[in-house]
Amino acid sequence: MTQPSDLTPTPVSAIAAAHKVREVSSHSHALVKDLRRLAHEAGAYRKLGRIWLEGDHLARALLARGGRPQICVVGASAWLQPNWRELALAAPEVVVIADNLLPEISSLESPAPLGFLIAAPAARVPTQSGVNTLVLDRLQDPGNVGTLLRSAAALGVKQVLAMKGTAALWSPKVLRAGMGAHFALHLVEGVEVNELDTLDLPLLATSSHAEQSLHEVRLPQPCAWVLGHEGQGVAEAVMRRCALTVRIPQPGGEESLNVAAAAAICLYESARQALTG
Amino acid sequence: MTQPSDLTPTPVSAIAAAHKVREVSSHSHALVKDLRRLAHEAGAYRKLGRIWLEGDHLARALLARGGRPQICVVGASAWLQPNWRELALAAPEVVVIADNLLPEISSLESPAPLGFLIAAPAARVPTQSGVNTLVLDRLQDPGNVGTLLRSAAALGVKQVLAMKGTAALWSPKVLRAGMGAHFALHLVEGVEVNELDTLDLPLLATSSHAEQSLHEVRLPQPCAWVLGHEGQGVAEAVMRRCALTVRIPQPGGEESLNVAAAAAICLYESARQALTG
Repeated sequence: MTQPSDLTPTPVSAIAAAHKVREVSSHSHALVKDLRRLAHEAGAYRKLGRIWLEGDHLARALLARGGRPQICVVGASAWLQPNWRELALAAPEVVVIADNLLPEISSLESPAPLGFLIAAPAARVPTQSGVNTLVLDRLQDPGNVGTLLRSAAALGVKQVLAMKGTAALWSPKVLRAGMGAHFALHLVEGVEVNELDTLDLPLLATSSHAEQSLHEVRLPQPCAWVLGHEGQGVAEAVMRRCALTVRIPQPGGEESLNVAAAAAICLYESARQALTG
Repeated sequence: MTQPSDLTPTPVSAIAAAHKVREVSSHSHALVKDLRRLAHEAGAYRKLGRIWLEGDHLARALLARGGRPQICVVGASAWLQPNWRELALAAPEVVVIADNLLPEISSLESPAPLGFLIAAPAARVPTQSGVNTLVLDRLQDPGNVGTLLRSAAALGVKQVLAMKGTAALWSPKVLRAGMGAHFALHLVEGVEVNELDTLDLPLLATSSHAEQSLHEVRLPQPCAWVLGHEGQGVAEAVMRRCALTVRIPQPGGEESLNVAAAAAICLYESARQALTG
């Protein structure tokens, strides 16, 4: 229980003094140029080595998972408001930016007044073996990819592997759809097919041609579910490595499911079986 | 088995002669103006009484479900190609449009060379009672709504009710995400809260506060699953009418699910229980 004395607010001036705070108002400032690219180019974080988390939801989700921002970028008006200022001061360095620059460093229709810059992960993160995994085989739509990460984090997946050719996981659109799930997962990008062999996990995929229906099969635990390209499905070389393919029961007939809906169903069924033993 | 003689192609000139075919090349033509609105305004179909199905996927999905186009609009170049012409001639009236007009009547980055106009449903379609139903309570995102329709059609839902304030079901974006599911469902828009009482079905909703977990409950069959607004969830007046609320098990912790992912899970669990008896 926090004691009342702990709630005595530290004067904002005192906190700010402990931080590096600077003001930026020029369109041509190097940081503004970088933010513009990060907000508008899906893969810019790979070149610039930084990820732009726009908005308080992503910023708070990072902090809640123990993540560390490098820099907070906050609009000048928001900087004057205690709640935004408090969030901004979670970063060791604060850049107070002219409000008129916010739209150009935003990927949103209504630009957020605050965002965090964090360090991009190393170009090559090692995979983990033996943990519940989701493999994204060249998924293209950033909304689908973000939704998949969100479902994965909620339903007990620990690791997501994005095969080469998958949408950039840390792009603004995927981050937005992911709603903070990124910070709860071990994410590996640029995975090659033969690396799947080192996972020490059975790979599972859905196929409308599979004989067995998802709900009739005892699913291996842990496992790696593979979800494929929106149009082409799972690549042949990946499908060959799958220990099991199942079809999702479709009592409504031969409709197809959106890939993120299919993934939610598969991950739920794995979780359900794990819970019911 | 189709006999070879059935495959002898009817000369295209003969088919075309049986149809009303006209050419349009002016930006200011009344039909082009209507198509422009239908392609770009989500609710224009309600005012114009027509729905624009852009692209061969939706056109073929309509035909596969026995739907009838009023008019096919086809680009002049595509009209010269037998496969497009054959699809175009499924409509009793064909409008061959100058290729340079295609981008302005399209909601896609790459405009499709063909689309169908169909009659919009009556302003008020009666609800059906006693059939598996999905209730959309003010969902806003057209991609989510389309994905939900697609999951509903695949997983055995017969009817979708869109409460007042839900994204327009027949808008181009919802149609695109729905991938033809529209034609497999009984769709009712503009539903008021008190109409839910006439469904003769138990209403079910998810809630993170619910005591029972989805996978532990015997779900009523048939039922009406209610999915709520992306930010606000299910409205209080609707929630009060729910016979049962359940939480989706989230072994990964307190993440939230995208509404279309949550819906896929709920509809799958209903289908699974119906299949396993």
